[in-house]
Formats: sequence, C-alpha cells, structure tokens
Amino acid sequence: MIEVLRAVLPDGRAVVLSGPSFAQEVAAGLPAALVAASSDAAAAGLVQTTLGGDRLRIYTSDDPVGVCVGGALKNVVAIAAGCCDGFGLGTSARAALITRGLAEMGRLADRKGGHPLTLAGLAGLGDLVLTCTGDLSRNRQVGLALARGESTVEILVKLGHVAEGVGTARTASALAERLGVDMPITREVAAVLFDGKPARAALTDLLARDLRAERA
Amino acid sequence: MIEVLRAVLPDGRAVVLSGPSFAQEVAAGLPAALVAASSDAAAAGLVQTTLGGDRLRIYTSDDPVGVCVGGALKNVVAIAAGCCDGFGLGTSARAALITRGLAEMGRLADRKGGHPLTLAGLAGLGDLVLTCTGDLSRNRQVGLALARGESTVEILVKLGHVAEGVGTARTASALAERLGVDMPITREVAAVLFDGKPARAALTDLLARDLRAERA
Repeated sequence: MIEVLRAVLPDGRAVVLSGPSFAQEVAAGLPAALVAASSDAAAAGLVQTTLGGDRLRIYTSDDPVGVCVGGALKNVVAIAAGCCDGFGLGTSARAALITRGLAEMGRLADRKGGHPLTLAGLAGLGDLVLTCTGDLSRNRQVGLALARGESTVEILVKLGHVAEGVGTARTASALAERLGVDMPITREVAAVLFDGKPARAALTDLLARDLRAERA
Repeated sequence: MIEVLRAVLPDGRAVVLSGPSFAQEVAAGLPAALVAASSDAAAAGLVQTTLGGDRLRIYTSDDPVGVCVGGALKNVVAIAAGCCDGFGLGTSARAALITRGLAEMGRLADRKGGHPLTLAGLAGLGDLVLTCTGDLSRNRQVGLALARGESTVEILVKLGHVAEGVGTARTASALAERLGVDMPITREVAAVLFDGKPARAALTDLLARDLRAERA
C-alpha cells in the first residue's frame, strides 16, 4: 500500500498507522499500542502527537514498508492458525505456525526493502499474535471454516464481512514466487483457498518440511 | 543455565532444547516444533535426529545463550500478560505487552552474547506466545491471581506447582540492573511479586511510558 501512496503523494509525507488493535477494544477505551511509520519523521511525529494519548500509545517508525508487509501478511498466517485450531492440533502447534509465519513475513519485508526488526515489533509480531489468537479475528474464522470443510465461496458468503487475508493470500503468494522469496505458509493458504487443496493436506505438508537449522 | 552447563561440561557439548510445547500436548501426540541449540553443531544435530520425528519437529541453532534467555524470560512476561487479562484490559493491550516483552528479552540476550534473531524464533517468540496466551500456563495463572489481589505467598501455596517466572523475575531484574539493560516489564513484575507494589499501579506505569520511536 505504501507504494500506491507514494505514487499519489509524491512529496513523501505518507504515514501508515498499524498494529494490534481490535476496533471494538479501542472504541471501548481499552489500552492499545500502534506504530506510525513514514520516511518523513515529522509527519510520523504529527500522527503520534495528534492521535496518541494515555490509552492509545503511538510509537514512530521510519519503515513504512515493513509496517505494510506486517499489516497485510498477518491476515494470511491467521487463516492458517485458524485451520490449525479447527483441526484441534493444539496451542503448541499454533505457536510454531505463528513463529514460522513471522519468519516468512520478515523475508518478504526484507526483500521489499523493509527492516527485519520492524516485523519483531507491534506492526509485525504484535498484530500477528492478536490476529492469530483473538476470537474477534475474521481471518482466523476463515481458517476455522476451512477446517470444517467449507468452500471459499461458502465462507465468504456466510462471513458477510471483508476477510482481507483471502485476497492477500493469492496476491502475496504470486508476489513471493515472482521475487523468489520462500513463503510456504502463504503458498499453502492460497492453494487451499483458490486451488481446492484440502486444508488437512496443506497443514501436513507444512509440518512435514525437512529438519534443518532454524535460521537457514 | 548454559553458563552452569559450560562450567560442568567443559568439552562444550551441552545442548539446550527449548520451544513452545505444553507437555500435555506433546504427550498426546500433537505436533510441536522445538530448537536444539549448542555451540557444537554435531551435538545439536544428534539431539535433532534422536528426539525429532514427524510430530515433534526439532530445528538446530548455534545460539544456546539466546535460547536460554528466551526460555527463562518468557515466564516473567507471561505473569504480566496474566495481570493484563485479569484486569480485563483486552487482547490488544496483551499483544502490545507481548511485543514489548520480546523486545526486552532480546536486549538481555544481546547483552549476554546471544543472537537477537534467536528471540524471533521458536524459543523466543514461539514460546512467549504460547505461555502468554495458553490457559495451561502456570505463569499466566500467577498473573491472573495477582490481578485478583492475592499475595505472592497465597498464590504459591495455592498453586502447588513450580511457576518458574516468580523466581526468574527477581533474578532477571537484578541481572538487568547490574548489566544496565532496560527491562521495564521484568522490573515491574518483580516489584509486584516481592516489594508489594499494587499490580494495577505497575501496569499503569508500564502503559504510561513516554511516547517514543519503536526501536529507540
């Protein structure tokens, strides 16, 4: 999205605001912490001081690319986490999936010129954890429905809301292939949603990848 | 712990095995992924091939220090997360706490000679997410009890199990002060557990820290 904003706002003052924040919780006045990211530090600071307060803490960042990758990709990993929960694979497996999900998000951010540490922050890890474990997450609900054997069309009709991760899975999977970035979770989610691959087979393929070094 | 192992096993073949894995889930044959870390790659590989299998995936790592810091400190952050849940502050606030918790774990690991990326992996982020969100976590239960106003002694007597994070909070807080590492969550948890600071005041202090840049 930052690439679109840069094309229409050539003075570079685009700021992206992202991070773990269910709208219902923020509206209820519960505490939350977000990131305002821009290549223009003054613009990010303006968002920080204008929108931030006691309850809504806003941190600044100079990495809008990393923040955008985090905000988009976490929805895809949440679909996989919902599948994992739907099949009753347990919270240990879900934690592993979240961790490997963050690793592939970091690879894409790095390839797009973002900073890997951004993905370890609120707009990466923070938002990923919330989306993958919170019952208010629509993307997680999509994964639960896939595990029940529902088709993508059925799910979208019943949901009646936007579940961003559905479209993002296809776009990000194609982007990863074009850029030569290894994103197995995104690829399997796209295969389940758009190519009719059974969700259980996709999860099995993910869990059966070769043993190797963690940072390899 | 790796420092103790190195003192008693001077040939350097100590391997630490850690990561997101509730014992009940592993015993039930559910999938989990762990890290075997050693400065001796052959020793780590031996643990990987001997204990690993289809269900229990084991990745190798050359960073036992980072893995040990992750395994110990995640328990302290889980106590804070339990407090946050106990006061009904919502899942967005909990996600922010988890994120800032991982950041301070990374600072300690870095200061002790570990690799910051280890903390973004299974033995850091993965285990942290599991411990902070899973209902099977004893450390999270300690935080819930603190939010109910119970004293440390009451909690430990009723729990009847080891909740590692209680002792770790005090040790890690003292270590951080000695090494000059900023660990506000660990410090506040120790203050609540051992100095009688009210849990709500501690959480308020954590959420009210000055606005600043995320990576500052």
